[in-house]
This record gives sequence, structure tokens and C-alpha cells, in this order.
Amino acid sequence: MLKHLVSVSEAIDLLAKALSETIALDTEEVGLLEATGRIIAHDIIAPEDRPLEDSSAVDGYAVRSIDTTGASHYNPVMLRNLGVLRPGGSSREFCVEPGTTVRVHTGAPIPCGSDAVLMDEDVGVEGGIIYVYRAAAKGLNVIYRGEDFRAGEVLGESGFIANPPLIATLASVGLSRVRVYRRIKVSILTIGDELVEPGAVRAGGKSYNSTTYILYSLLDRDSIFSIRYAGILPDNPVVVRDAILREVSGGADIVVTTGGTGVSEADVVGDVADQSERIVFRGVKLRPGRPTSCFILGGRVVLSLSGFPVAAWTGYEVIFRRSITKWLGLKGFDRRYIYAVLARRVPNTVGYTSVIRVSIRDVNGEVYAEPYMLRGSGVISSLLKTNGYILIPEELEGFEKNSVVRVYLYE
Amino acid sequence: MLKHLVSVSEAIDLLAKALSETIALDTEEVGLLEATGRIIAHDIIAPEDRPLEDSSAVDGYAVRSIDTTGASHYNPVMLRNLGVLRPGGSSREFCVEPGTTVRVHTGAPIPCGSDAVLMDEDVGVEGGIIYVYRAAAKGLNVIYRGEDFRAGEVLGESGFIANPPLIATLASVGLSRVRVYRRIKVSILTIGDELVEPGAVRAGGKSYNSTTYILYSLLDRDSIFSIRYAGILPDNPVVVRDAILREVSGGADIVVTTGGTGVSEADVVGDVADQSERIVFRGVKLRPGRPTSCFILGGRVVLSLSGFPVAAWTGYEVIFRRSITKWLGLKGFDRRYIYAVLARRVPNTVGYTSVIRVSIRDVNGEVYAEPYMLRGSGVISSLLKTNGYILIPEELEGFEKNSVVRVYLYE
Repeated sequence: MLKHLVSVSEAIDLLAKALSETIALDTEEVGLLEATGRIIAHDIIAPEDRPLEDSSAVDGYAVRSIDTTGASHYNPVMLRNLGVLRPGGSSREFCVEPGTTVRVHTGAPIPCGSDAVLMDEDVGVEGGIIYVYRAAAKGLNVIYRGEDFRAGEVLGESGFIANPPLIATLASVGLSRVRVYRRIKVSILTIGDELVEPGAVRAGGKSYNSTTYILYSLLDRDSIFSIRYAGILPDNPVVVRDAILREVSGGADIVVTTGGTGVSEADVVGDVADQSERIVFRGVKLRPGRPTSCFILGGRVVLSLSGFPVAAWTGYEVIFRRSITKWLGLKGFDRRYIYAVLARRVPNTVGYTSVIRVSIRDVNGEVYAEPYMLRGSGVISSLLKTNGYILIPEELEGFEKNSVVRVYLYE
Repeated sequence: MLKHLVSVSEAIDLLAKALSETIALDTEEVGLLEATGRIIAHDIIAPEDRPLEDSSAVDGYAVRSIDTTGASHYNPVMLRNLGVLRPGGSSREFCVEPGTTVRVHTGAPIPCGSDAVLMDEDVGVEGGIIYVYRAAAKGLNVIYRGEDFRAGEVLGESGFIANPPLIATLASVGLSRVRVYRRIKVSILTIGDELVEPGAVRAGGKSYNSTTYILYSLLDRDSIFSIRYAGILPDNPVVVRDAILREVSGGADIVVTTGGTGVSEADVVGDVADQSERIVFRGVKLRPGRPTSCFILGGRVVLSLSGFPVAAWTGYEVIFRRSITKWLGLKGFDRRYIYAVLARRVPNTVGYTSVIRVSIRDVNGEVYAEPYMLRGSGVISSLLKTNGYILIPEELEGFEKNSVVRVYLYE
């Protein structure tokens, strides 16, 4: 039934396109304290220079650098302290003339006449006299106007996931609210006659639903989504179709199904897809994760993931997340990666992208990736016992032992 | 005033001890779908083996491995298909005898008599006859009972931060609820006559409060906290003390202050500390972040961070987070790190641990760390323009260019 598998990159492109064609993602303004993890919806421009004037980077003494030439512990230069300048003070409060200095606090403006700041440990203090123990180059410990950023500079691009430094940067220029994309509404439907929820009574032959839980938890970590879990459905295409349409009516941007995608078993989702408005792709050259499919129903994207937790995870991780990044031009949403030395050979079936779970071992700075045994998309503990994954491109027969591979880290 | 600075490791130890002595962190039971990011409060034991019986890892054909000896594309072995076994079926439904096979789906039990499973691509199908194109070793594509995990095995240790694989693992054994530590209640107090909130009118000489915003956003990302921001206070020790005690009465486990910690300037927090029940430490050999201090007031820990955003960040990142890890024995809370080649020499003042912000450049798999210029704990964009940080231990004079350093990645 999965005859025309698409490649991983085709699947990402097709899904990104389908998302952009079906979802009008409005924006909303939120307070800065609620913005962490949200997607910035427009380029944010610095309204002013920062700092607004030349400022001291440290607690210390503002000097004329020329006064300190040749200063050392054995031959200190003596300067007279004119007073103290604090953040919020004016550079005109004091004027540093030959033989004088001004005490400055971090963030204070540089007093007129001075061009460098010596740190406390580079001077000795005796009453109003400062002994300078080193020469200061012009500009030492001075932050020039606009050095942090300039008025007009882009502080955060559209698509940037708001992180603590961005939040603080926006605060520092007085912005209290920020326009972000509204959360993407994802409904999860779980398909399978054989499933019961954890906590329920498990009759003979039934299994606990675990795939929904990994998917929900993954979506939950990515704070760009709002998630609704709509429950377990039987292996019945009519029921599944109705449930999808109900989620769409309820406002879902995307419906994600798990299970019912058998290559050989009851292909419930395939039957629904056959009656859909358009099949986007049906199966991906991805292992595990081959049944990952996509179609349009009720004018919305339905992403169908495997019923097996590891294969649903690859569909989420390798296809879905990357298509979201592509659709919205996200920055800062990609998984972090490291390079590691592969501890064992891993083979690949040419024509498929393989997702290999690996454990990272750091042996005094030599980082090794130990592949998890290559089987069992139902073996959940494989994810619990590993730290990341490598992707073997479809054109390769595998990676040799000792080759350096890129490992994407689980969040 | 900061005369007896403690080392970074001493500060972490002292703070962890103070937290454990002052906070009784209760536990609560939450549903699995709410547990992501929470701290598991006791060792979770697998109640049963998984899988419960020997199972197929793939869609394919269960065989007696001995029947397939010598099979190849040129010399296939013919087997008769007895039927289909699905997940939830019984291994007794079929018995594989010499010359026969059973179609099995992923997760189905291994039918009696068989000891290996051939994948679809290793066989040809013609009606009820299966042509085997390769020899199957005993155990091929079989997941043995308990191979995922065994009854009695610890699935998640106390202190583990619940992540998607753990959530799914717990679901797979039927656990619907999990006992976690309640969220740690952190109140933030901001100190500074010179501060106004972003969005407010900024009179001459005033600055926008940004330090609270980076701290709030950092705490927000770590879902183990519940955060209350109590606003800006003037540089007045009496007011600050009252505000701290009010937060404690309101239920705060920890009060974090920012600002008012001047080494030379008005040391408001120092004055409060002097009147506190106990000073835990006063200043850390950390750069930036030297003013980071800790005392006990109202029976609770008060952690005092710098008013400068980058120095408050190092206090959070290098001291606070690590003390929480130590206090609760957290697993999975540490920042991820990579190794990189240092693109420039970075000096250190011996006796201090330096936090150096770096940008990571990946040049075709060679990873370089470019240090951000070493100044300006007020330069917020330094965090926006970098990806991680390195720590120079207090006993070193710095790291040489081209040395391999550990870079902790920002989340």
C-alpha cells in the first residue's frame, strides 16, 4: 500500500507547503514575561542605541589613558579622585583633567576628559589619592555608545524562538510587549482496537497506549503548540474520519493520528486518506517511521504517524518538527548536535534514511556514540537509554566504525 | 565588603545545603500528560516485563532458523504460510513446523516452534508460498521477553526530570499517574532606585529593568519552578527586608533578589544580610557574578544576584542551577555541552572562575568556539550573539588558542 514512498527531504517540503496552504497563523501580543518559547512574529528593531552613551564596563576609575603611561607596581602614577559617578549620572558631572580621576560604577557614563577605566585591582586607594599600577590603553573597559546594539538594528528576527537573552534585550530597550504567533493547535487522535489507556483495566491481548504519551510530551516541550488529546478510536475508517472532522471543526490547525497505519495490517488511515481531499504523501523512506503519511481533510493537514512509539517519535522528530521550522522560518528550534566517534559500524538499507539511537560516552573529552541495537520500534526503553540520534542518508550503505558522526541531542 | 569570597564549588555546596535545610519539598501525584519536565520523586519500578512475551520487532515471517540454512536469492527456501499473527494474538495460535512459516506483525508474539523473523524484503510471496532469500540466525528480529525491561527494573530514578521517553515508558506499563516533587516556589525581588519597568515612562537617568526579565525567562524554561515576580524596590534595606519577609510569608521557598549588591556602591542587600539570621556566603570567586550572595531570612534562603543581566545570568547558571541539582540529586537537568577548539586565547584572573561567552562555528565538522570580548556584564546582546559558555577554573591563567574546551550550550 505504501508504494510511492517519498524521501525525508521531500516529505518535509511537502508537509511544510501543506501547512502553509492550510493554516492562517494569526499573531497576538503578549507581555514579555509570557513570551519565553514563543515565536517572534516580526523583526524587532532597536528603538535606540545601547548604551545610550559611552559607559564603564566595570567598577573602577576613569582616567586619561595618557596620564597612565609607564605606570607599574614599582612606579605607580598618582591621581587625585574628583568624586563618584553612578549609572544614571551625567558625563558632565566631572571633568577629568591631567592628574585627576573619577570613581565610576559599572554602567556609569564615562566622565568628560577621560578615555579609559582602570579596574579596582589595578589601583591602590589612599584617601582621595589613587595609585595607578598599570598603563591603560585608550578605550580600556569603556563600552562605546551603540556598542551593545544600535538604533535600527534587528534585535530579534521574525521566526526567532524567544529565549532569555532576547527577553532581556527587549526589556533593556523598554519594550514590554511583543508580537508572537499564536500557538499552533494540534489535536492528537489515537487509533487501535488493541489499545487501552494506562490506568485502565487491560483485558487479554490489549496493550497500554504509550505512543500518544511520547507524542504529547514532545509537543508539550515545544511551547509553540497547544495540544488537545482526543482519545483512542477503534480501527474503523468512518469513525476515524468523523473524529478528524470533529477536531477540525473544533479549531485544530493540524490533526496528528497515531496507529492504524499498517503496511500490511488494517490500513485504517489509508482508507481515510483515500477518501480525503488530497493525499500529500503516503509513506516516507525513513526507518523507523516508514508509515508516516499526510493528507488533507476538512481543509486541514492530517499527519499520520506510526502506532509504535519509536516510529512515531522519528515521524515527529525528523519530519514534523523540521517541516514546522521550514514553514515558519524558525530560528532556534533545531535540535542541538554534537560530533562523536561511532563506536560500531551501523548499516543502512540504501534508499532509506535511518534514524539510529545512540548513547554518548565522554571519555576524558573523547566523545563516542554507541549505537543502540537496530531493532524494535516498540522498544521504548531504547529512547530512555540513549541520548541522541544520528541520521544515515538514504544514499549511504552505512557509517563505518570510528567515523565521526553528527548526533542530534534529545531535549 | 566582599572580603571572604567563596569558590564556585563552595558556593554550590553551601547553597545546596541551605536549600535542603530550609525547604521541605513535598511531593504530589500528577497525570502522565502533566508530568513532562517535573522531577520524579521516587524510584519507579517496572511492574512487569516488557515485552510480556517473545515478540517480533518487525513486520515479516516467523521461521525456524534451521529451515533457512543456505537460503539465497539464487537458492531460495520455500515455506508454506500458515496464517497471520497480530499484536495481542497468542503464540499458540499457530505452530511453525518444518517447511512452514507464519506471517507476523510488529509486536506480535513469536509463534511456537519458530525462533526468528525474516523481514518483508528478505522474502518473496506467491500466494501461500514464501520464498526465503537469506538465512536467518536464531533470534533475528525477535525481542525476547523482558528485553525492553524486566519487572523490578528501575524505569526512572528519583530526581530524574520526566522527559518524553520516560512518560511513554510509564504509559507502556500501565502507569497513569506519577509522583513528582511539587514546583519550587521562587519569588523575584528587583532592587534599584534607578530602575523602571519596560513600557513605563523613563525619566532622565533611569534605566529599564532587564535583569529580572532574563532571570524570569530562565526560571520559566526550567519547568521545576513556579515563579512570582514581586516588582521593583527602592535602595532601602528596611523596605527590602520587609518585602523578603512578605514573600516568605506568602509561601516562597526561595527569594531571589537582583541588584543592590554593589561592591562599592550602596550595598542594600549587604545591609539586609547583616541583619539576617545567617549569612551563607557573601560574594563568589566568579566573573562576572562576584556579588552573588546568600543568606537566611524568615527561615528561607535569599539568593542575591547582581543587578547586571550577564552577572545575574552567571549567578543563576553557574551557582543556582547547580545547587538545585545537588540538593535534589537531579538527573537530566545539567546543560548539554560540546567540545570545541578555542579560536582565541582567553585570559583568567587566577583565583576566579571566569565565565566566557562563546559563539560556536561549525566549519564542516570542525567546531570552533569564538570568545565574546571579555567585558560588559551589562552588555545583554553578548548573550544573544553567543551560543554557550566555557568556565575557566580559578587555578588557571586562561586557555590558550586552539585548546579544546567544553562549551555548555544555552537552552
